[in-house]
Amino acid sequence: MKSKSLKDHFQDLEEYFFPKVIGEVNDTFIKVAKIKGDKIPWHNHENEDELFYIIEGSLLFEEENEPPFELNTGDFHIVKQGVNHRVSSREECKIMLIEPKSTLHTGDKKTEITRPISDQMK
Amino acid sequence: MKSKSLKDHFQDLEEYFFPKVIGEVNDTFIKVAKIKGDKIPWHNHENEDELFYIIEGSLLFEEENEPPFELNTGDFHIVKQGVNHRVSSREECKIMLIEPKSTLHTGDKKTEITRPISDQMK
Repeated sequence: MKSKSLKDHFQDLEEYFFPKVIGEVNDTFIKVAKIKGDKIPWHNHENEDELFYIIEGSLLFEEENEPPFELNTGDFHIVKQGVNHRVSSREECKIMLIEPKSTLHTGDKKTEITRPISDQMK
Repeated sequence: MKSKSLKDHFQDLEEYFFPKVIGEVNDTFIKVAKIKGDKIPWHNHENEDELFYIIEGSLLFEEENEPPFELNTGDFHIVKQGVNHRVSSREECKIMLIEPKSTLHTGDKKTEITRPISDQMK
């Protein structure tokens, strides 16, 4: 049985930027990921909203047509479908993601960090 | 603009057991609620999974055919659709809920604490 503690699931994360599915709520995945650096490309998810919740650390958020802003521990932000965005962090940042199961990792872009959902579920 | 801090949203909660919608991810609602006491009846949601994440405090969880267990700050648990459950707490407990928009507050039961989704969105 998986741990009840959300933070414990970060122990399974070996790579930065690589989300892991920790739960399912009907058509929605709950994931955790750790971010360090700026390898995530600008991208969007045509049909999917995406919620970022900061478990620990700080995340620099960039969205098209908006000034950049920072999210800190306990903050959350929802990127609406179709909106170009990217996130980055100088120091390690632990996040929870809430998004439809159909969401592609880096949306309309594919780079060295992009992981298919099958790998996110291992 | 609503605050980025999830904890700030608890300031809008006047009543125990009364969830408030703080965000939408496609067909899913993100809610916060505070629990104190045992007024939530045993109930189930026929077609909806429901995730509980503990922001602050302790929550006693009861599910049919399982021994009761406690969730503490940082823990989460997903009740699968159709499973009878109830939660309670001696001291105030702050929780986040992730559930499909179609989820009824107290599922197949209706009591004095039951609130329609229209009130949860105010």
